[in-house]
Amino acid sequence: MFRVAVVGATGYTGFELLRLLASHGGVEIGALTSETYSDREVGEVFPAFSKVISKRLQKFDPALCRETDLVFCCLPHRTAMNTVPALLEGGRRVVDLSADFRLRDSAVYESWYKTDHICPERIGEAVYGIPEIYREKIRDAKLVANPGCYPTGAIIALSPLLRAGLIRSSSIIIDAKSGVSGAGRKADLGIQFSEVNERFKAYGIATHRHTPEIEQELSAAAGGEVRVSFTPHLVPMTRGILSTIYAEADDGADAAAARGALEETYGGEPFVRLMPAGEFPNVSQVAGSNFIDIGLTLDERTGRFVIVTAIDNLVKGASGAAVQNMNLMLGLPEAQGLAHPGFWV
Amino acid sequence: MFRVAVVGATGYTGFELLRLLASHGGVEIGALTSETYSDREVGEVFPAFSKVISKRLQKFDPALCRETDLVFCCLPHRTAMNTVPALLEGGRRVVDLSADFRLRDSAVYESWYKTDHICPERIGEAVYGIPEIYREKIRDAKLVANPGCYPTGAIIALSPLLRAGLIRSSSIIIDAKSGVSGAGRKADLGIQFSEVNERFKAYGIATHRHTPEIEQELSAAAGGEVRVSFTPHLVPMTRGILSTIYAEADDGADAAAARGALEETYGGEPFVRLMPAGEFPNVSQVAGSNFIDIGLTLDERTGRFVIVTAIDNLVKGASGAAVQNMNLMLGLPEAQGLAHPGFWV
Amino acid sequence: MFRVAVVGATGYTGFELLRLLASHGGVEIGALTSETYSDREVGEVFPAFSKVISKRLQKFDPALCRETDLVFCCLPHRTAMNTVPALLEGGRRVVDLSADFRLRDSAVYESWYKTDHICPERIGEAVYGIPEIYREKIRDAKLVANPGCYPTGAIIALSPLLRAGLIRSSSIIIDAKSGVSGAGRKADLGIQFSEVNERFKAYGIATHRHTPEIEQELSAAAGGEVRVSFTPHLVPMTRGILSTIYAEADDGADAAAARGALEETYGGEPFVRLMPAGEFPNVSQVAGSNFIDIGLTLDERTGRFVIVTAIDNLVKGASGAAVQNMNLMLGLPEAQGLAHPGFWV
Amino acid sequence: MFRVAVVGATGYTGFELLRLLASHGGVEIGALTSETYSDREVGEVFPAFSKVISKRLQKFDPALCRETDLVFCCLPHRTAMNTVPALLEGGRRVVDLSADFRLRDSAVYESWYKTDHICPERIGEAVYGIPEIYREKIRDAKLVANPGCYPTGAIIALSPLLRAGLIRSSSIIIDAKSGVSGAGRKADLGIQFSEVNERFKAYGIATHRHTPEIEQELSAAAGGEVRVSFTPHLVPMTRGILSTIYAEADDGADAAAARGALEETYGGEPFVRLMPAGEFPNVSQVAGSNFIDIGLTLDERTGRFVIVTAIDNLVKGASGAAVQNMNLMLGLPEAQGLAHPGFWV
Repeated sequence: MFRVAVVGATGYTGFELLRLLASHGGVEIGALTSETYSDREVGEVFPAFSKVISKRLQKFDPALCRETDLVFCCLPHRTAMNTVPALLEGGRRVVDLSADFRLRDSAVYESWYKTDHICPERIGEAVYGIPEIYREKIRDAKLVANPGCYPTGAIIALSPLLRAGLIRSSSIIIDAKSGVSGAGRKADLGIQFSEVNERFKAYGIATHRHTPEIEQELSAAAGGEVRVSFTPHLVPMTRGILSTIYAEADDGADAAAARGALEETYGGEPFVRLMPAGEFPNVSQVAGSNFIDIGLTLDERTGRFVIVTAIDNLVKGASGAAVQNMNLMLGLPEAQGLAHPGFWV
Repeated sequence: MFRVAVVGATGYTGFELLRLLASHGGVEIGALTSETYSDREVGEVFPAFSKVISKRLQKFDPALCRETDLVFCCLPHRTAMNTVPALLEGGRRVVDLSADFRLRDSAVYESWYKTDHICPERIGEAVYGIPEIYREKIRDAKLVANPGCYPTGAIIALSPLLRAGLIRSSSIIIDAKSGVSGAGRKADLGIQFSEVNERFKAYGIATHRHTPEIEQELSAAAGGEVRVSFTPHLVPMTRGILSTIYAEADDGADAAAARGALEETYGGEPFVRLMPAGEFPNVSQVAGSNFIDIGLTLDERTGRFVIVTAIDNLVKGASGAAVQNMNLMLGLPEAQGLAHPGFWV
Repeated sequence: MFRVAVVGATGYTGFELLRLLASHGGVEIGALTSETYSDREVGEVFPAFSKVISKRLQKFDPALCRETDLVFCCLPHRTAMNTVPALLEGGRRVVDLSADFRLRDSAVYESWYKTDHICPERIGEAVYGIPEIYREKIRDAKLVANPGCYPTGAIIALSPLLRAGLIRSSSIIIDAKSGVSGAGRKADLGIQFSEVNERFKAYGIATHRHTPEIEQELSAAAGGEVRVSFTPHLVPMTRGILSTIYAEADDGADAAAARGALEETYGGEPFVRLMPAGEFPNVSQVAGSNFIDIGLTLDERTGRFVIVTAIDNLVKGASGAAVQNMNLMLGLPEAQGLAHPGFWV
Repeated sequence: MFRVAVVGATGYTGFELLRLLASHGGVEIGALTSETYSDREVGEVFPAFSKVISKRLQKFDPALCRETDLVFCCLPHRTAMNTVPALLEGGRRVVDLSADFRLRDSAVYESWYKTDHICPERIGEAVYGIPEIYREKIRDAKLVANPGCYPTGAIIALSPLLRAGLIRSSSIIIDAKSGVSGAGRKADLGIQFSEVNERFKAYGIATHRHTPEIEQELSAAAGGEVRVSFTPHLVPMTRGILSTIYAEADDGADAAAARGALEETYGGEPFVRLMPAGEFPNVSQVAGSNFIDIGLTLDERTGRFVIVTAIDNLVKGASGAAVQNMNLMLGLPEAQGLAHPGFWV
């Protein structure tokens, strides 16, 4: 039985990790940290875990993680890069759910996140944590940069199409829609119930920080620089991201070729499901699960592919991917603790 | 054309007052105050009012209200009693939407609100603002204490039954359910979307501050002390309060007598609707309107009346009642600006 | 006082028309028809109208409309074209909220709606009911084809940009998101609460029937054939449509020119609001109102305009536009009964 | 490995059973029936089960269940009693989720359900499926009548208090609030999204069919006839039931005694959690789990206990209880497949 720690356990990704780890079977929880709720039982803070997880929350101290095989770092960006180096120096392997180690170019990070990167020398060690693309590197990584929720929903679908030269790399538009849990667990008037319910808006138009992350990975797939239009929206629901993606078919590309590229790449993947032709996913079908579901069509009238992907932003978009990465890093079966279907929300 | 001011215009009751006043026809807006959003156009803060209301928000100063005939005070309790006396001294008439002047006994106020009352001498001047009960006093009042949302939903239905001796005054249970806007417009983790959506809970059990307000008015109706069980709940919707009320039928009382008492009392009221026997209101049917709808049955198996009332907590439960009170105070037709139906939410 | 009739008064557009007409002041309701709820008071069917509108619903018969100046036809497509000719022959003027008279080419109608058009000779009489574009024709029209909800949200924003040659007409993508009331008022498992709540999906991808309507009007603006990618989505909310629109800037076009074209076209319009640079609308700010709000930016990184529009699908997208058309047809002030702000949903 | 069948697998309780059985580990699915979706893969009907459960739905035929150890019958009442006898005669053990075998007195059934009972002779065989009360009888039962969702939320909390003589049996009021999935999976205008969202209502006041089921079990606990006031409400959320229960303290009873009675009865139960004094459950904390959480206080001002219970109506209120009953019947560990925490909805 491996031992793991969760640093920053009382946000939504922390909650979700606890839910997944509680039924995992291959790991036990060694330490849970929280600055806000320290010295309280996790079951007091989240009554859902009463009689399920018996563990006291503690203020973070690297020493708490000493006896663990792996640490999940669920802190916000900027805070994470202040914490991760000490864990690595102590010999811990880390899955970091923040943005701090995702971008390979610290200048890009600093430009989009408006802050200095305090340990750019660590960026080179980090493996970008999409197992469907970087599986072998993840197995040996000391530091996995768990991908952003929006990037996950876009990169997995688009990479095989770019690699196969089926879409024009300058034509990509990602119109994404997220549940409110993606904004994090915090007091903020803008995500108050009466300010979100029965509402719908776009935000971060042409400026959202997940843009460079998407472009970095799509450029790698395309073998050349890719720029995308990315527009996130806020949906009055708690969980889930639906991404509607538009891209012009390259000369000679058709729907069969595109489906073929996805099937060939992902046919053996445990958590990628390509929907039958003519069907498109609803975020509900992946709620609570680690699946990413993909639907695709070619609109012959306009020559554009329309691709729709659905993930649960807290699972495949965060904590489920983190557990999948952990399984790879610890040599456990990749799907352990993640093989359950979603739930009817 | 009368002139009115709204002090604290950028909370939910402030928004709702602006919505009602914008179409009122008999008053114009003389001043709007906001500590948070001062020096901004109201249409910038609430884009719904762009091209509708052109008025700049200002920090509160009693001098701003000097040229107005009436001031709506939409400040939270404790803050209101620091503001209202200066307005009264300046000769303004005030409709105060806070709790500070509703309870006739300052000791009761201090016990439930856990704070000293700084101007108990003003309490005697205040008229409790339910027009269906205190219409004549309201006409001449300098200070109207606009009732709480939960009390409105309970008192209007129960008073005629108590006055007619049809229910046992010791048996009253009010199980009330409110939309989230009742919690006010503020950053607070507990009312964040992802903490309220797909959830349901009771709160303030046996301790909610609207209890003494309900008891004060029911005691007046019964001619003796009444104590009630009152339990509020939080519903994942923005607006509306449904109150399910249980009371034992007194000897000889039956459904016909109870319906008769309500019809006799409210038959001529513009904003009270008694539903046909066997029908009960949904909060949706009063959304956006100033109506209170009442359904009633006698459960012969248990000898208990079950009474259901529905109001929009922001209209009949707050700003609509405030406008109705204003109309009475200014000698305008009582239903002016309030005669529209609700909207389909 | 003019007299109007509403044929098919118990769907959502019927409800909304009744709400608007109840406070209009310039018209009275002459007849209301419903096949499902005939012989019942409107206040029984919709308790929100109790004590507000006193009128009995009747089964449709052209004779019911004989004494009216104008008829709103709120029937579904196919049914409408069976009803409208009789009304026109009886001398009535008609605002038809269905799709049956919107497409000028009956072959296009038949291809997208999979049904024969039974009175193609009437199509030429119909004026497409966007007052911001066809105001003068509407004044004299016998038959106004009230536009579809999605088309309204796209055409008003894009037409001036196409007319001014600021965007490439082959590059338009309209990613639209609608509340559930757009699906109509009917028993249908797919729009049951537990099948929509906490969900999000695209539907009708590359096949939605509003596509040819959008293309017809954009082609007219561009002076040449325009084809668009149009993808509607279902949002777990009742009302509202947000349209996120992407279009490549034509050579030399910039954000200032685009804003200028919109300001010039719509600066004097009562119901079009262009948001300040950097701001984009939320559907909540138009809920219940007849406004269309527009935000626009040019993403310099990709050379694409991103335009966001918000309407209430039941008001500017249906019944509000219908009342605006009625006002024009009857010679009433265009904004009468529509000048109120939206409500906080 | 035991084999089980699910008859009526495509409603909400069917979906939930499939979700629980997919991760159970001790049983395999032998047959799934559906009249509506026969001959389709379950993963086509519910894409959440794609790559998780591979099984074709079939029209019901008792022969399909021949090779199974236990059958879950998820049919509506009336239909169930036409199906269960054939299964029993074929030697199958049955957990029936309908109401048809819950009431011991067929006359009571016929009076509340307005239909004849076609096999009253089978009622005596049925064991009422609350393991916390009838555990030993369930182990040997051929037919378990799985309890109603509302009764579960009331009976588990009240039985120990009645048995201990701590509350007045004539004073019980159960004000219950349910998510919409409780209404079943069907096309019905009344549960359409736009008819439920942003709404709240009571229904079945003094007439709901779960009343006699609650009274039957409370009478058994009290050792004498108990009549209750029971009022269900519809909450705009998918899952969960919160029951707010009022009962007068009997002479000498206090909060400590009541908590003691609950602790003594349920301290060792795997799925009952008594909350700390002063805390009350939110339905969210049991979402997706088989727990029932109970909070209790004594309001000294009125002499009434206020008890709040929360369950997931589809789990502890239906399919989770069914699996718990199955575990007992098959000699499996009682908590197998049910030990996971809930999910953040």
